[in-house]
Amino acid sequence: MNVYQVIPQYAKMLGNIERWLDKAAAHAEAKKFDIETLVQARLAPDMYPLVRQIQSACDTAKFSACYLTGKTPPVHPDTETTIAELRARIQSCRTFLETIKESDVAGWEERKISPKWLQGKWVRGDQFLLQMSIPNFYFHVTTTYDILRHNGVDVGKQDFIGSIPIRD
Amino acid sequence: MNVYQVIPQYAKMLGNIERWLDKAAAHAEAKKFDIETLVQARLAPDMYPLVRQIQSACDTAKFSACYLTGKTPPVHPDTETTIAELRARIQSCRTFLETIKESDVAGWEERKISPKWLQGKWVRGDQFLLQMSIPNFYFHVTTTYDILRHNGVDVGKQDFIGSIPIRD
Repeated sequence: MNVYQVIPQYAKMLGNIERWLDKAAAHAEAKKFDIETLVQARLAPDMYPLVRQIQSACDTAKFSACYLTGKTPPVHPDTETTIAELRARIQSCRTFLETIKESDVAGWEERKISPKWLQGKWVRGDQFLLQMSIPNFYFHVTTTYDILRHNGVDVGKQDFIGSIPIRD
Repeated sequence: MNVYQVIPQYAKMLGNIERWLDKAAAHAEAKKFDIETLVQARLAPDMYPLVRQIQSACDTAKFSACYLTGKTPPVHPDTETTIAELRARIQSCRTFLETIKESDVAGWEERKISPKWLQGKWVRGDQFLLQMSIPNFYFHVTTTYDILRHNGVDVGKQDFIGSIPIRD
């Protein structure tokens, strides 16, 4: 297993979020509420709302892919205020992730990953992926799901996981 | 990266949950409520409560380790009703995960993983780990965190991630 398999998995999970947003739209229509109220929904007053959870899931995927390959991340200024804009953000992130080629990730396990907040210190590529990137990514994806579920959207575990390659 | 690195990461995240429970105990004492009310706390009436989220996180780690190595999982009958019993469940799971040796996981990427509910069909080891085990594990761990956070427990992102191997 290498990072080249993790990046498409991140893209898949972001695609799953788009389908949860379809279900959120159906729920809003059935219950006759404005779907945009969900953009600011949160699980606790001092937790990030849905908009920031989705932005953070996208950013974790994007920056991880860049840290591990040396590529320059595309800029996303976090200006989304509507569900439609969040969908566009997800699609933009997925499109970028699809540009990563297997050859781009060569040597990722040994790479020195040094985000700004580490102030010059670093984490080794494989440990960054396993202990920081993956937990962070699933934190924001799951909390997105939990916010929608808490607000009555009819999503279930299969919507969370998405399609899986089952064989006969 | 191989499954031998993922299993200790699962054990680490389960250990993090124990520290969130310490903070839950402090919160219950400060606010003078019975901590055991959190055992049945949930984010939606048709979502599993804390007890089942923690059991499922433990089970995902345990069964994944067994599917990927061919080992027999220890039995846990899901009888926990208190925070103390949930702590014991986590500790039992972590102790089991620590018995997995690097040699046990040989060939895991090609293994045919066939949980009962697949009714004879299977998923390849590497795809099982990446697309089912890891998302499921973090789903239950994050939802545990989200339930506690929703109930006012003072946990933050650093408690979620735990210690990381930062180098100079």
